[in-house]
Amino acid sequence: MASADPVFELHRGGKMAVASTVPLTSREDLSLAYTPGVARVCEAIAERPELSVDYTWTGNAVAVVTDGSAVLGLGNIGPRAAMPVMEGKAILFKQFGGVDAVPICLDTQDVDEIVRVVTALAPSFGGINLEDISAPRCFEVERRLDEALPIPVFHDDQHGTAIVTLAALRNAATLLGRELGDLRVVISGAGAAGVAVTRMLIAGGVRAERVVVCDSKGILHRGRAGLGGAKSELASMTNRTLLAGGIENALAGADVLIGVSGGTIDETAVARMAPGGIVFALANPTPEVHPDVAARYAAVVATGRSDYPNQINNVLAFPGVFRGALAARARTITDAMKVAAADAIAGVVASSLTPDAIVPSPLDPRVAPAVAEAVAAAAKN
Amino acid sequence: MASADPVFELHRGGKMAVASTVPLTSREDLSLAYTPGVARVCEAIAERPELSVDYTWTGNAVAVVTDGSAVLGLGNIGPRAAMPVMEGKAILFKQFGGVDAVPICLDTQDVDEIVRVVTALAPSFGGINLEDISAPRCFEVERRLDEALPIPVFHDDQHGTAIVTLAALRNAATLLGRELGDLRVVISGAGAAGVAVTRMLIAGGVRAERVVVCDSKGILHRGRAGLGGAKSELASMTNRTLLAGGIENALAGADVLIGVSGGTIDETAVARMAPGGIVFALANPTPEVHPDVAARYAAVVATGRSDYPNQINNVLAFPGVFRGALAARARTITDAMKVAAADAIAGVVASSLTPDAIVPSPLDPRVAPAVAEAVAAAAKN
Repeated sequence: MASADPVFELHRGGKMAVASTVPLTSREDLSLAYTPGVARVCEAIAERPELSVDYTWTGNAVAVVTDGSAVLGLGNIGPRAAMPVMEGKAILFKQFGGVDAVPICLDTQDVDEIVRVVTALAPSFGGINLEDISAPRCFEVERRLDEALPIPVFHDDQHGTAIVTLAALRNAATLLGRELGDLRVVISGAGAAGVAVTRMLIAGGVRAERVVVCDSKGILHRGRAGLGGAKSELASMTNRTLLAGGIENALAGADVLIGVSGGTIDETAVARMAPGGIVFALANPTPEVHPDVAARYAAVVATGRSDYPNQINNVLAFPGVFRGALAARARTITDAMKVAAADAIAGVVASSLTPDAIVPSPLDPRVAPAVAEAVAAAAKN
Repeated sequence: MASADPVFELHRGGKMAVASTVPLTSREDLSLAYTPGVARVCEAIAERPELSVDYTWTGNAVAVVTDGSAVLGLGNIGPRAAMPVMEGKAILFKQFGGVDAVPICLDTQDVDEIVRVVTALAPSFGGINLEDISAPRCFEVERRLDEALPIPVFHDDQHGTAIVTLAALRNAATLLGRELGDLRVVISGAGAAGVAVTRMLIAGGVRAERVVVCDSKGILHRGRAGLGGAKSELASMTNRTLLAGGIENALAGADVLIGVSGGTIDETAVARMAPGGIVFALANPTPEVHPDVAARYAAVVATGRSDYPNQINNVLAFPGVFRGALAARARTITDAMKVAAADAIAGVVASSLTPDAIVPSPLDPRVAPAVAEAVAAAAKN
């Protein structure tokens, strides 16, 4: 941590600030923005609570909530150490979606307590972006909050990844002249991202019976003992042919491999895929299959890394998803809204597809507005 | 709420925003502020948690927390209707103290729950400014949070008012050639502000035995039945001569009347004060004694209103108090820090005192830096 280290220098004092959007330099300014004027706005909201989204910042404000239990690839580093990531997320929300996001790092990892705390602070925000909460707790936290709150709740590690993965798969299939419904898809990883990616791909047109999901112990199938919760649901929804064994069995003849596991997959297993297919190796910083290896067997390769082509980056999704959900005053984020977001992301580069450009750059300014518009439209249907 | 109403027009979309303080326009920018660079900052904080104040915004960020139970003079209007006031507070924090404040309006008014929620979100902030929480709950909420958390906790309705009142009383006494310790002081109101004002004045040099506190039922004294909690403490600390009865008894011969009750005080009672004294009638928007009436009997008059001279406005205190406490990395805000804040506020206008200028204007840019410096110095003693 030398003083010349650019990462630490950039982070000194944090990466974000609050700003007033109204003038505060005269007594008249104070009397409008604060007492006595503000009292009339309070009274109006007390009478008609739905006015709060119009006359407070909550209509544009999202809490980025974590318990620090699964931060990047660093694991359970706790709320204080998670803050730099949450600040980063917050400023990406602003930069790309114009959304005012506030990082809230919680000093508890108890599901009941997280639900209680977020429920209590929810009137302060127009949406809740859950972040870096470990599986399987994240599923229950999200489900309970989504049921309890009248505002959108979105666990980005699940749905952000899933939306961008669907967008990328759609464009990769188009490029290869394939239909999503015809693809045999293997998903390696059954944590937060794996579960959400599987559900999203199925919602987006992949056929459930052609999907096989693997965790670190191998293929999920109805007959496997000891599966609970989300994994049990995945096992009963996918893998109609009851494949069993290790991932090498799943990959034999498969068209698509999506790695969201953080583990590694042997080249010999990848070599068993059908030729000319698709490999998304999304673990960061070490992809499950090195992209150079993947390219020997697949026609389209994507990773989670910025230094290879086709970066599957959540920032393509979450700013526009919330921008659109807030604009539509959606009470939840439906599968239809997520599929619309994926289609919008894919659409931005649809007319210029190449194997090295199946998704837009994370910096592409066209993405968030397109996603927001699509999500808002889907919310209203 | 006509569309041309300037208050509602100003409040449309809220009064605040989040901003990035770092560039986010190139891949290089993203790799420093977000992944992969940010991971190293997270790891450093995981190893040494005390680094979080240096490398996140928490070193400069304060939560403005309310339960909406006692908002302005509007009473228990709940968290959504309270938000415009909390946003106002947040932008005043920024404007005058350079502090990044985030409004958190809680959907609970249960003391245990408030303590639990604020404790859970505390790692996200460098300080907690409690706001508009009704008495007597506010005393327990503040005490328990102050004990539980390693960061400053400050209920502004109590201590902000108390600090500025002490500042004003110090300058009024100077102007009149009186010593604080010689004054007979009557405090009308034993809620959040009344309790804190009483304690602050005593910490600042007023003699406890010369103070008499009244609530809506009259004078607090040791013999009065049914007093509990803070009122019982005040009764045993003040009123050595065991005055009893209504406020007219307390005011007979008193030098100072401080109204923090929201009630009204008859002119006949005020007329019983010693001549040439001091009246601070701080209720808003209707002072306990109209300032024109007060001026018939007192040499120095102050109110909480911006349209009369000598406005006792908390904004003179809270931005500088937190600025100084954060700079000193104080774990709590002591009486010495509050007295230092009052002295600093008084000091800004000490060389130009007139009966109409015993406190600085709320817009005086010299105040917050002076308060911050004094508070930080007191924190280090």
